[in-house]
Amino acid sequence: MQISRPQDHSELNLEHIINDLDSGALYKARSHLHNLFPTEIALLLRSLPMDYRYQIWDILAPEAMGQVLAALQGEVRIGLIEHSSSSNLVEAVSELAPGEIADLIGDFPDEVRQKVLKNEGGSRLEAALSYDGHTAGRLMSMDALTVRSDATVDAVLKYLRAQDKMPANMDSLVVIDKNEQYQGMVAVATILTTEPQESITNIMDASEAIPTNMPVSEVAAIFEHQEILSAAVVDNSKVVGRITLEEVLDVIREEAEHAVLTSAGLDEEHDLFAPVMVSAKRRAVWLAVNLFTAFLASWVIGLFEATIDQIVALAVLMPVVASMGGIAGSQTLTLVIRGLALHQISASNAMQFLFKELAVGAVNGVVWSIVVAMIAAAWFSNVPLGVMLGGAMIINLSCAAVAGVLIPLFLHKKGIDPALAGGVLLTTVTDVIGFMSFLGLATIFLLA
Amino acid sequence: MQISRPQDHSELNLEHIINDLDSGALYKARSHLHNLFPTEIALLLRSLPMDYRYQIWDILAPEAMGQVLAALQGEVRIGLIEHSSSSNLVEAVSELAPGEIADLIGDFPDEVRQKVLKNEGGSRLEAALSYDGHTAGRLMSMDALTVRSDATVDAVLKYLRAQDKMPANMDSLVVIDKNEQYQGMVAVATILTTEPQESITNIMDASEAIPTNMPVSEVAAIFEHQEILSAAVVDNSKVVGRITLEEVLDVIREEAEHAVLTSAGLDEEHDLFAPVMVSAKRRAVWLAVNLFTAFLASWVIGLFEATIDQIVALAVLMPVVASMGGIAGSQTLTLVIRGLALHQISASNAMQFLFKELAVGAVNGVVWSIVVAMIAAAWFSNVPLGVMLGGAMIINLSCAAVAGVLIPLFLHKKGIDPALAGGVLLTTVTDVIGFMSFLGLATIFLLA
Repeated sequence: MQISRPQDHSELNLEHIINDLDSGALYKARSHLHNLFPTEIALLLRSLPMDYRYQIWDILAPEAMGQVLAALQGEVRIGLIEHSSSSNLVEAVSELAPGEIADLIGDFPDEVRQKVLKNEGGSRLEAALSYDGHTAGRLMSMDALTVRSDATVDAVLKYLRAQDKMPANMDSLVVIDKNEQYQGMVAVATILTTEPQESITNIMDASEAIPTNMPVSEVAAIFEHQEILSAAVVDNSKVVGRITLEEVLDVIREEAEHAVLTSAGLDEEHDLFAPVMVSAKRRAVWLAVNLFTAFLASWVIGLFEATIDQIVALAVLMPVVASMGGIAGSQTLTLVIRGLALHQISASNAMQFLFKELAVGAVNGVVWSIVVAMIAAAWFSNVPLGVMLGGAMIINLSCAAVAGVLIPLFLHKKGIDPALAGGVLLTTVTDVIGFMSFLGLATIFLLA
Repeated sequence: MQISRPQDHSELNLEHIINDLDSGALYKARSHLHNLFPTEIALLLRSLPMDYRYQIWDILAPEAMGQVLAALQGEVRIGLIEHSSSSNLVEAVSELAPGEIADLIGDFPDEVRQKVLKNEGGSRLEAALSYDGHTAGRLMSMDALTVRSDATVDAVLKYLRAQDKMPANMDSLVVIDKNEQYQGMVAVATILTTEPQESITNIMDASEAIPTNMPVSEVAAIFEHQEILSAAVVDNSKVVGRITLEEVLDVIREEAEHAVLTSAGLDEEHDLFAPVMVSAKRRAVWLAVNLFTAFLASWVIGLFEATIDQIVALAVLMPVVASMGGIAGSQTLTLVIRGLALHQISASNAMQFLFKELAVGAVNGVVWSIVVAMIAAAWFSNVPLGVMLGGAMIINLSCAAVAGVLIPLFLHKKGIDPALAGGVLLTTVTDVIGFMSFLGLATIFLLA
């Protein structure tokens, strides 16, 4: 995040547009919007409360709407679609790639979807619809240019010159054999610097093609490792499209955003300015889960009511043990969740990591138990109380390390996203063990 | 994160290499490594404990080491550099771009750095070193091909054919005027499909160039909005290099990873298998901060020792109020931190968002206060106790919403990363207000 910059471009956009709309200067707002890229307009719409958002949508040219809708997700997109006239939606998608249309029309009202299928119809949109969402087939564009591997550079140059206009971001051509099977890629720049009589097969790069059913997260990994700008997409070795790094970028951004939101139980919260009741209802789920675990912790404390009744200082100190365990455990948890997402942690190295984390937990447990023991002993002039607190801290920080490793691994194995459920399970463990160990030790040793 | 796939490529790599090393089959390990991309080897090294990591490094060809080091960060990179011989390091960097060398040699021992500066020396490395880290100047490669805007397509084709070999991922050429000032970009593919006598100035794209001192996060935003594969880098309008989307990808990945780690106080924890004492020391900082806030909460509870002494059920129930406030507040906090990072939230719309969150907090406060009040009243057969608990919940969830908005905005304004300090400040507020409101209400109304 940039800090020292005074105000950035998107912040200024936001301020200008709000000023224009507030002062009723719609023509100024419209010309301002005209100078923005579709992704910038999308960001602007996401940043605005509903009333401003729909004012902007109403003055936006229909031909710009398609790209903007394609750059949006979830409820912001759905809200704008609901606010659009059928004719605007039909016009909006006319400039989009088949895969983009396929992604969008699922959110369209029935009769508009039918109209789009009729207008844009034909094999390309049908093909795009036949691929699952979040796969290479949906991500690709269908404008790949193919050349035969036995062609000469000269022949390819002639073929390319005969093209009316090159598709955008066309850095490479796809090479196929005489049976239309995928062979490799050849950079346009390489073709330019090669002798005319050279055969394409000698200058192509035999990189792997991407199958249509590959999940987009794997597509992203391939682009990352191979350091390429585009790749061919194949269906049983037959070339059906291409993906450029530019499309992969959106995938990576969305995955990163998903990871941040999921850990707070906000997976579906795409719209900052969703209606209050919608937001409240969605977040209530997470609060309900937490309520259950909070009462579980209360129940553990309740088991020791008699002990607390005799030594009220226990009630004062018990949150310290639980809270320190929660922090230590969540540090381990964060590393494991990241390690799983980056494929750094698997069955082969999990045990070694567990031992390392257990050692870290034990070291910090001992160090901090001494500190809290001294503070508590001094505060309540009660050395045994401090010793119990310190002992409970060592127990809880060690358990927190083990839970921080095992909980996400277990969830991952069961097919549950550890970022979603990991945190709440972990704090349940650290709360229960924290209260139980501190109050239990006190019951055994202080009341004896 | 992929769940249903049985085992992915990087997991298999890890398993194979560990098997090879355990069985002493170094030749197999070496040939396995030979088939991997540098970024895959980097991932493998990050996933392995120290002893395995250094075994692999010892059998890796020096010419592969450079790309692998360039793909690593932080302490994993530093550890491998320390483990390498001077001659290997000098050989390793020989294949790298000046910017990559500039990034690496800061971590090299003095005498190796001197040797590299002597070997690779000259103006390019010196130029790369003159730019700050995390700026476009450091990210760029210096292999941009420039053509004059008044040249014809035919002349440019001749010039390109005279090039020995095209640099990798060269999708566009940079257009300059006769004073070597930047004019725009022209796609190689466009040159191919244009009539030979056409002037470059008529087919170029007058997109903005990137100044050398632009922070890399802004470079990423430009690539994202403009949907381009490469851009020129300029120093006072003079073209000094180019950046491709492939280099920007690393920036985006690193920013996403940074965001995840920072929120757990793990900003510097790049190495899963760092030595125990190193990890323990680093994480102790965050535990120390938390210890302070935990004792602050204890102090608040201590203020009500006399009340708890009379009604021990308060001690049993008080964590519920604090915990629910913490969860509700962190949901708001997460949205604001994301909104700030994406430039969605700024001074222009902060108040509207605050009111929305306050309303969400109040709605959920009322709903859940009724639930907890009924549970607590039934559990302890004490209706007034339940009412106090419910009242405290409404207070704490409303305050949590306000704190969840204002804390990150305040930190952002002060130039402190809200992802780093936001969570701990928020739970301090929700703990203090949670305990204070519940125990305070009980003192006033139950002991009266």
